[in-house]
Amino acid sequence: MTNETTEPASSDGRRSFHDLFDAESVALIGASTDPETITGRPQYFLEKHGYEGDVYPINPKYDSIRGLTCYDSVLDVPDDVDVALILLSAPHVPDVLRECGEKGIQYNLVIGSGFGETGEAGEALEDELIEVAAEYDVRVVGPNTLGVLGSDRNLALSFSSMLDEQDELVPGGEVGFVSQSGSFAGMLFQITQRAGIGTRYWATTGNEIDVDALELMSFMLEDPSVSMIVGYIESLADGERLADVAATAREREVPLLLMKVGQSDRGQEAVSSHTGKMAGDYAVYESVFEEYGIVEIDDVTSLTDVMATVSTLDTVPRRDDRWAVLTPSGGAGALIADAIDREGMELATFEDETTDVLSEIVPEYGSVMNPVDTTANVISEYALYEDAFTTLLEDENVDVLLLQFANTGPKQAKAYEDLIKREAEATDKIVIAVFTGGKPSDEIVESYRSSGIPTFTDPVRAVRTIRLLGRFGSAIDSDSASTPALEEASGSVDVPADPGRWNWEHAASLLDAYGISHADGRIVDSTEDAVSVADEVGYPVVMKASAPDLEHKTEAGGIHLGVSSVEEVTETVGELRDSVRAYDPSIDLDGVLVQETVDDGHEVIIGITRTDLGPVMMFGTGGTLVEVLDDVAYRTLPITPEKAEALLEETAAGDILAGHRGQEYATDALIDLMVNASRLYEDYDLDELDLNPVKVRADDAVVVDFLAK
Amino acid sequence: MTNETTEPASSDGRRSFHDLFDAESVALIGASTDPETITGRPQYFLEKHGYEGDVYPINPKYDSIRGLTCYDSVLDVPDDVDVALILLSAPHVPDVLRECGEKGIQYNLVIGSGFGETGEAGEALEDELIEVAAEYDVRVVGPNTLGVLGSDRNLALSFSSMLDEQDELVPGGEVGFVSQSGSFAGMLFQITQRAGIGTRYWATTGNEIDVDALELMSFMLEDPSVSMIVGYIESLADGERLADVAATAREREVPLLLMKVGQSDRGQEAVSSHTGKMAGDYAVYESVFEEYGIVEIDDVTSLTDVMATVSTLDTVPRRDDRWAVLTPSGGAGALIADAIDREGMELATFEDETTDVLSEIVPEYGSVMNPVDTTANVISEYALYEDAFTTLLEDENVDVLLLQFANTGPKQAKAYEDLIKREAEATDKIVIAVFTGGKPSDEIVESYRSSGIPTFTDPVRAVRTIRLLGRFGSAIDSDSASTPALEEASGSVDVPADPGRWNWEHAASLLDAYGISHADGRIVDSTEDAVSVADEVGYPVVMKASAPDLEHKTEAGGIHLGVSSVEEVTETVGELRDSVRAYDPSIDLDGVLVQETVDDGHEVIIGITRTDLGPVMMFGTGGTLVEVLDDVAYRTLPITPEKAEALLEETAAGDILAGHRGQEYATDALIDLMVNASRLYEDYDLDELDLNPVKVRADDAVVVDFLAK
Repeated sequence: MTNETTEPASSDGRRSFHDLFDAESVALIGASTDPETITGRPQYFLEKHGYEGDVYPINPKYDSIRGLTCYDSVLDVPDDVDVALILLSAPHVPDVLRECGEKGIQYNLVIGSGFGETGEAGEALEDELIEVAAEYDVRVVGPNTLGVLGSDRNLALSFSSMLDEQDELVPGGEVGFVSQSGSFAGMLFQITQRAGIGTRYWATTGNEIDVDALELMSFMLEDPSVSMIVGYIESLADGERLADVAATAREREVPLLLMKVGQSDRGQEAVSSHTGKMAGDYAVYESVFEEYGIVEIDDVTSLTDVMATVSTLDTVPRRDDRWAVLTPSGGAGALIADAIDREGMELATFEDETTDVLSEIVPEYGSVMNPVDTTANVISEYALYEDAFTTLLEDENVDVLLLQFANTGPKQAKAYEDLIKREAEATDKIVIAVFTGGKPSDEIVESYRSSGIPTFTDPVRAVRTIRLLGRFGSAIDSDSASTPALEEASGSVDVPADPGRWNWEHAASLLDAYGISHADGRIVDSTEDAVSVADEVGYPVVMKASAPDLEHKTEAGGIHLGVSSVEEVTETVGELRDSVRAYDPSIDLDGVLVQETVDDGHEVIIGITRTDLGPVMMFGTGGTLVEVLDDVAYRTLPITPEKAEALLEETAAGDILAGHRGQEYATDALIDLMVNASRLYEDYDLDELDLNPVKVRADDAVVVDFLAK
Repeated sequence: MTNETTEPASSDGRRSFHDLFDAESVALIGASTDPETITGRPQYFLEKHGYEGDVYPINPKYDSIRGLTCYDSVLDVPDDVDVALILLSAPHVPDVLRECGEKGIQYNLVIGSGFGETGEAGEALEDELIEVAAEYDVRVVGPNTLGVLGSDRNLALSFSSMLDEQDELVPGGEVGFVSQSGSFAGMLFQITQRAGIGTRYWATTGNEIDVDALELMSFMLEDPSVSMIVGYIESLADGERLADVAATAREREVPLLLMKVGQSDRGQEAVSSHTGKMAGDYAVYESVFEEYGIVEIDDVTSLTDVMATVSTLDTVPRRDDRWAVLTPSGGAGALIADAIDREGMELATFEDETTDVLSEIVPEYGSVMNPVDTTANVISEYALYEDAFTTLLEDENVDVLLLQFANTGPKQAKAYEDLIKREAEATDKIVIAVFTGGKPSDEIVESYRSSGIPTFTDPVRAVRTIRLLGRFGSAIDSDSASTPALEEASGSVDVPADPGRWNWEHAASLLDAYGISHADGRIVDSTEDAVSVADEVGYPVVMKASAPDLEHKTEAGGIHLGVSSVEEVTETVGELRDSVRAYDPSIDLDGVLVQETVDDGHEVIIGITRTDLGPVMMFGTGGTLVEVLDDVAYRTLPITPEKAEALLEETAAGDILAGHRGQEYATDALIDLMVNASRLYEDYDLDELDLNPVKVRADDAVVVDFLAK
């Protein structure tokens, strides 16, 4: 019998995942009496952590477990059930899921291993689960999930030993966790608990045959109590949805903190073209995370720091925030200044007034420059500290004020507590307290935290944390920057339907239609025509065998550069034909391309390919340096002028094109070219488009070679 | 009266600093009765921490302090005094130091501020101290020192509040600390104490008017109980001595862990030449630290990790150590693999036998690849863990074995304690335990540590720590690589005594003498000669105004490139003369340089200048990319072939020259050139030598321009 009151999960995502994380009733299918075993633990943990809902153990072997009636099957449970935790081994799961479907249980968590990750038999089992879920219109989490947690009803629905460590979970919650790795999720949960930060949602998605990480993040972002999303990602299916998740996160000012591990072969292949070696999947993720303002986390220490800081701060940092440092120690000040520089952030230049005030109060052997070294006198002189602190906080050039406390820091922080808390609460600037030397008590840390002041014991970690979060803040800012609408696409061009068959002349007409400059050239059949084209475009010319099926022109001897005379042109036509015939007799030449030589300008490479995260443009240094420098960045399509500019900013190619030693480059033309290439790619629904090389000169940007698929 | 039994400090450095750190008697000059004040604290701290020696408070105001007889002057103390701590304000110090000199006190610590750092009056006071110290042949530590600590007699001789925190200092000691910043030194000390690592020596050198950081490090390195030197450095005088300190550290296998902060203007200036913008002082330190195998520390967290690891490990890691990872979690394994890759280290490729054994025991849904994912089954299956662990440890391709423990880690680590400790003690490989999730007890951490197994809670920090220490280990290895002796210097060449007056012909004859290839060219007086040289070297030629006083040739219009015909050569001679005359009529041309155009080859830049750390060669990418890429590395002179190779390895220029896309470069010739340029620099005792550009071609490396000072 299907439970008729439950709506289909797909009709209202928010409402439905609410029924998962804050379920009113849970069935434990395959429950056992021993709380030391995987099958016995979930019921024990639900009890231990005070689940406010109904629990139905299901196991024909028992009449009752831990004082609750135990049923032979979910179908025997007299009431509605929101969630089923299926604790059985893989082969038993499809039949049980069918029963859950009949019972109308919307969320079914499969913890078993032995599915898709173990080969064909396991994959067949997964397929069966997918079919059953579709048949009954119910959702599956897993297989290989560790379970889920929701704080509203204290639903601690997992067999993970992480639930053993604490007697009580940190109450309330502001963190939404989603992890594709179970054990890693357990670790993140424990770290968060130890840091005293409450978890609102926690989920491990396992094999993701149905419910996946991105949809859970979307759901969590709709909850106003959530102040950060933490995700552990190995790979994303339909990763284009990440754009929407990240946009929502920016809109709600809820940072998305993601650990992305592993460089999958599939992703590697998708991105790589002939420059494949450098186009790692991970590099694409890195660039796209930058584009979306996703805070990328590489290690547990940073994650802990960032989470504690988000949980404390009222203000989202920006990457261009300017720092002031107030220290009793010139040495620590220098270390902090170095760290700010190394992390690509900047020290504030004070207003004159600030310097004037500081000059009056700071002892001669201190420093009124930034970092401000008040000397150890601050330890005993309240007025000195008060004046220095408030003056720095009022300076309009200061966005972040780092208060460094040295050996007597805890005493000083206690003595100046009221002052610092009052001022920090009154400002919307960021105030950070760093305790090097003497370690502050938990009480002081908590007191500062309650006024929005994060505390650290390593100043370098303080700087790094703000820089990591700054990416998110700065991406929020760029959302508000206007993005001009793209121009209307050009009229259709007469080219073969299969882009793999486009030759240079097709390419040239397409580039013309999209207003993209390119090297002059034509495909010819005869030596006479070759000479006449060469005369037209000017010597020396480039001559290439033109044949859509010829993928490796260089290896086939199909390219001659610097052809400088009528005689050489004549000879080359024959040589190209001979070489290609010798290389592969089955290849039909459609002629010989005679092309102008573009030997000036700076060489860059532009490529667009499909990736896990959707179509992405790669931009970077071209030519002989391309493999050595590994100087590329990525942005998702459609490319806007802002994204094109970001690609220039992130690469050495862009630095070079910004001009130096009096040399100028037409970066505007290059940006237009990138935007228009993106349009071309989308209009023709290509899989791959390579413009390589593109030569950027003083007044134009010229495509020299073109490949489409 | 001079104490005649004390030898001059300079005659036996080791013996004498022993008298400082393990002094048998101490005078506190300016002591007071209030243990809350700077002048009262030292005596209180000596008492509190159980100093095993005689303490003599000196202050005419008191008869006794804390039960000890107080003297009016050190000259009244009836016995010998090893060390004086001078607690008086700056103006009083010279007179007191004179008394200390008369008393024959070898070590005099000046804590006062108000000396060199405050301007002229303070500098005069410093000069006076230096004179007095020389007159009496005694040593001064400071001014601005926080004091010193030595563990042998529990000499805690400081007013720093850091001595307040612990009731007892961690006994014994293996760390030697030297810091140029007092408050920073206090912080490092506290961190070390909290980590349970004993401090053998601790010193803050302040303004270093006499005793400096490097000589203290040298001293500490002679003590066999010292297992690491930790230094905080702002700048070094006579920094060339760092080479010897680092060499001793490598010889004794005692790592040197240095924090280098600040980029002093003076250092910046010393390194910078016309490529000055990129030649930061700090970049030189970074490269030289790499050369010397000095472990460079940027943040407190890394320092703590590295110190704890050195204190635990019996083996010095190498940078090319190959990692095996044993984990119950595929997710954590992927994170660790990423970290190993990101830190530039490598995962081991197992022997076939290892994979065979693992395949038999690891469950199907785990992984026998590296990282080895045993799945959570290891938690309950001792035999599985034992087999996997011992198999990995026995694999000859494995140097470092990282054991990752997940949520139930503490239990597992306890259950497998005997196995892991026994095997780790029996091997000379590095075994590391990382606890993500469940936090191990102090007892477990201590137990593992006692078997040489460092523990971490963040796997990425574990990897980073080994990589940081790997620099030291690898530098030890390269010491054992033979360095061929340099060839005999060439015979003398007839050039002006002042290198600033060397023109291209002088340069060319010097380069010839040192076997360095260079562009062909001559300085001429007449258009006829110009044409004949041009004919000889081949068109197009480069023509330059030659005048030693003409520093900015380009600005003066003194360089013409691509001069392609007899007519152009004739015209250019006149134009060069006119331009230079218009630019500065006072400049005398010694002629016009007509030089071959070297337009092929890859452009690099080689410069040698004097720095804080002695003469240093800079090598990197030249040409138009030089400013954008900031691709330079440094090595100290003399340049050996090994150092030249390291310069190639550390730069993108070197990557390019390693050859790609079938292009080859004569890197051997370049390495010879670098070695010979280093000899030239030293033979002629130059201040600066710039070879820029140097063009590296398939069969030679050619100097195109030359500047010496």
